[in-house]
Amino acid sequence: MSDIGARRRGRPPRTESADTRDRILTAARAEFSERGYEKTSVRGIAKAAGVDSALVHHYFGTKEQVFEAAVEVAFAPALKVRDSVLDGPLDNVGERMTRTIVDLWENPVTRTPLLAIVRSAVNNETAAAVFRRLVSAQLLRRIAGELDAPDAELRAELAAAQLVGLAMLRYVIKVEPLASADAEHVIARVAPVVQGHLTGRTGTAA
Amino acid sequence: MSDIGARRRGRPPRTESADTRDRILTAARAEFSERGYEKTSVRGIAKAAGVDSALVHHYFGTKEQVFEAAVEVAFAPALKVRDSVLDGPLDNVGERMTRTIVDLWENPVTRTPLLAIVRSAVNNETAAAVFRRLVSAQLLRRIAGELDAPDAELRAELAAAQLVGLAMLRYVIKVEPLASADAEHVIARVAPVVQGHLTGRTGTAA
Repeated sequence: MSDIGARRRGRPPRTESADTRDRILTAARAEFSERGYEKTSVRGIAKAAGVDSALVHHYFGTKEQVFEAAVEVAFAPALKVRDSVLDGPLDNVGERMTRTIVDLWENPVTRTPLLAIVRSAVNNETAAAVFRRLVSAQLLRRIAGELDAPDAELRAELAAAQLVGLAMLRYVIKVEPLASADAEHVIARVAPVVQGHLTGRTGTAA
Repeated sequence: MSDIGARRRGRPPRTESADTRDRILTAARAEFSERGYEKTSVRGIAKAAGVDSALVHHYFGTKEQVFEAAVEVAFAPALKVRDSVLDGPLDNVGERMTRTIVDLWENPVTRTPLLAIVRSAVNNETAAAVFRRLVSAQLLRRIAGELDAPDAELRAELAAAQLVGLAMLRYVIKVEPLASADAEHVIARVAPVVQGHLTGRTGTAA
């Protein structure tokens, strides 16, 4: 199972220290989203959270571990994607996966942590490693597990590539006319491609 | 025509100042590739080129203008993509576009400037604007001009999204098994999708 769901397992009920942890994680998420991994410092996170740097280290350890904890929280949407993809028939899995990803990027609340992940992973190997652990292990491999194909993981990654590229051009770099195109129109164009990658039933026939 | 091909038009033959300009551009390209836009400084570029910062400003102006000049040089590969895409029949344009992009990323020499563009454009609005001017205006709109479709620009951008996402997951973030998959196999899987986006002859049929 994911680390996200189990994050608080074994810990006592909500206390002052749990509040402090959450405040640090919220500050960390905001800092990493705005600045990316390299330009974010533990000191900056501590300052934004109104605590001493030593407390950040006490709760989370190194900057890498703070990042991983912050992004795991931020990456809860990935579980939503996974659930929506796994919950339904395979013959429209492409439409479900595409719609869920587009919805997450259209919503400003979920767009922020997604930007943190993209901006950090592109520029920093530590953040890229976290991306690989979270996205590959928790999302894509679970989707691949549902596919009846020997190259299921590659299929899931090629489908993800279409969606990552869509997010890059539409939401991050904002290339027109794609950035302003109607979301439903975009979903209608991309879903068959994602479906084709995942199940081979469309998108690869000549 | 592109600014790249015309870059030296009207300038005198190679002189000491042309050498200095080229040395500055080479240093700038290396700095932007490694650090991305925000962490690169004119002073750092000048130091790497062995010149005074004032000379960098004299030749190129602001940091944004240095970036644009460096990336235009770095972006010569985009013209290769455009030429290879435009030079041939439309019914295998997807294969040509995919192969050219994959070849550029497979080659370490051309991978560096492409990384500079991706890393900078994701983290900085100035660099994103340069990306939009270069990629949209010089590459995608020219490809769209060859397509006989009312939504040609959107088609070119959705095709580009598949290829940008492929580059992100395979070459930047290095998700497995995609990162280690055989290049020809990847081209064979992605080309029909790119073809489908561009011409609608494959990839969107149910």
